[in-house]
Amino acid sequence: MTSAILVEAAQLEASVRAALEGAGASAQSVDATTRALMHASRVGVDSHGVRLVPHYCKVMAGGRVNPRPDVTARRTAAATGTVDGDHGLGHLTSYRAAEFAVELARESGIGAVGAIRSSHLGAAGAYAMAIAEAGMIGFATTNTDSVVGLFDGTRAFHGTNPLAFAAPVAGDKPWLLDMATSSIPMNRVLLYRSLGQMLPAGVAADPQGLATRDPKEADMLLPLGGEGYGFKGAALAGVATLLTGILNGTTLDPDFIPMVGDVDVSTPRNMGHFFLAIDPERFAGAAVFADGMRRYLDALRAVPPVDGGRVMAPGDREWDVEARRAQEGIPVDPDTAAFLGLRGAPQDAA
Amino acid sequence: MTSAILVEAAQLEASVRAALEGAGASAQSVDATTRALMHASRVGVDSHGVRLVPHYCKVMAGGRVNPRPDVTARRTAAATGTVDGDHGLGHLTSYRAAEFAVELARESGIGAVGAIRSSHLGAAGAYAMAIAEAGMIGFATTNTDSVVGLFDGTRAFHGTNPLAFAAPVAGDKPWLLDMATSSIPMNRVLLYRSLGQMLPAGVAADPQGLATRDPKEADMLLPLGGEGYGFKGAALAGVATLLTGILNGTTLDPDFIPMVGDVDVSTPRNMGHFFLAIDPERFAGAAVFADGMRRYLDALRAVPPVDGGRVMAPGDREWDVEARRAQEGIPVDPDTAAFLGLRGAPQDAA
Repeated sequence: MTSAILVEAAQLEASVRAALEGAGASAQSVDATTRALMHASRVGVDSHGVRLVPHYCKVMAGGRVNPRPDVTARRTAAATGTVDGDHGLGHLTSYRAAEFAVELARESGIGAVGAIRSSHLGAAGAYAMAIAEAGMIGFATTNTDSVVGLFDGTRAFHGTNPLAFAAPVAGDKPWLLDMATSSIPMNRVLLYRSLGQMLPAGVAADPQGLATRDPKEADMLLPLGGEGYGFKGAALAGVATLLTGILNGTTLDPDFIPMVGDVDVSTPRNMGHFFLAIDPERFAGAAVFADGMRRYLDALRAVPPVDGGRVMAPGDREWDVEARRAQEGIPVDPDTAAFLGLRGAPQDAA
Repeated sequence: MTSAILVEAAQLEASVRAALEGAGASAQSVDATTRALMHASRVGVDSHGVRLVPHYCKVMAGGRVNPRPDVTARRTAAATGTVDGDHGLGHLTSYRAAEFAVELARESGIGAVGAIRSSHLGAAGAYAMAIAEAGMIGFATTNTDSVVGLFDGTRAFHGTNPLAFAAPVAGDKPWLLDMATSSIPMNRVLLYRSLGQMLPAGVAADPQGLATRDPKEADMLLPLGGEGYGFKGAALAGVATLLTGILNGTTLDPDFIPMVGDVDVSTPRNMGHFFLAIDPERFAGAAVFADGMRRYLDALRAVPPVDGGRVMAPGDREWDVEARRAQEGIPVDPDTAAFLGLRGAPQDAA
């Protein structure tokens, strides 16, 4: 196993932009994808960070993803709309849809936007966070290809189907939850595979449905809640499918061409997403919201931790990682570093 | 331990109505609370069913809950509104808010309604289901008093904070998820206590934060996701708090007077809830939605189960229980049966 290398954020961002430009992506596509990937890599969601650049370049070259899409937004009612991604990179479509949801919510109190003809969006939290940065509660979700088993099922059915929520915190970083409805995302399995590390127990199963800790054997993830309560994780994955594939009339989880592997990379996958923005101004008001958020976070962080533990609000871990990486650099795995031409970068072990 | 008795639905409903009327509840309050409790008892969510009638009568007598509230709805934007429950029974406020969300969504594509000055609403799924029965995707949530620990925390912080989703299925019962963000709800602990049964492992902790299976020792629940991934369950509980207590400016989980126990039953708790209705007509259309739902459910139910298991969609278990109870009657625990004057009902063991 080769160590990851640490790369300064600005240098990494420039190399990501260069790779995407080199693959023929439009300026808007490069901006959006770089923004989403750098968000993930900065806050420690490495499974959804710059590691994905080679994949995106490959699917743009193959024709699955349109490098120069004409993304269009259509309002369908006072508070709803659809963004058609024209099979471009999902990040561009998703930021556009998140902005549209904010516009609708500014006028109508809440905005809900479905995205169609999109593709992999990276970390869903990037878009929930964009909504929170506009002062609203943000929600983003997507369905993805079948890699997670059902409760009592012997076959992968749902995608890891993330649910991402974010909310503004006055004078501080947002409250941010970006969770797969499996215990871990498949991209994390791929990262463990690339790093040669063993998986935690009870998070993945082999092709026969038996639990395994070997990332090379892992063929299927297990839903959040484990052996006793995995029906909850499976149902939450279903919520993502309801709000994306079913509501938008886009591809259902079991019908997706797999994201990775020895698969067709020339056919668009018609992925759907869903975004919500909720304006606190139309409920108890932004000031009451800010005060409640502050009291909530203060009370939460005042709970005494178990020995050796730390009580954290969603996002706390991410902002800690972000601060550390701003100092130390962002770890990049060897394959991605080679792809981005970062072989000569500082070799401090991650 | 005394066995539960089985009571025919119409008889049970009449006795619930009579008890609530006897406690002075208004006709609208009686209708709404009976509807919500009978929903829960019919589909097997006994922790949130008719078992709660004595509690509601007690808090109406004490003054915590207003038996004859003047519930008012106010629109705040094209797609948002607030329902003021006037400290009445939460079921009345919640059905009114769910209907309001549907009205807003019919016009604006989506409707979001916050409820303020409300009280315990029973099973949140009842309101998500009311929205699904109107042809829309429904979401309902509430925060409640602190009974669930944080990840790595030594003290209860969040309520069981349910997330309930429902969606229409053409020609069939709705897709229905009504889940606590703990592995089990506190009311289930109370039911186990009343029935003298042991709890499943890893779902509850004693006052020192140590896991216990004895429902009499259980002082705190553990969040969904267990030892490894409980931070996800805790974060989902936080989503409920964000959308209810914080967004509505109502009581935060740690500030609630406890629902039950030797506590003040004269002071209103100012509980907040949140309801969403999403109209499929403003996305890909109702026909596309119905087709997607059907294909999704068919594919899900076609997944081969593990030995002795059964692959189910959310709600399947509930509709099975409902069909069986329509034949056999609804089990009522001895304390509740005595309160409702059902001591003379058929004594077949549940």
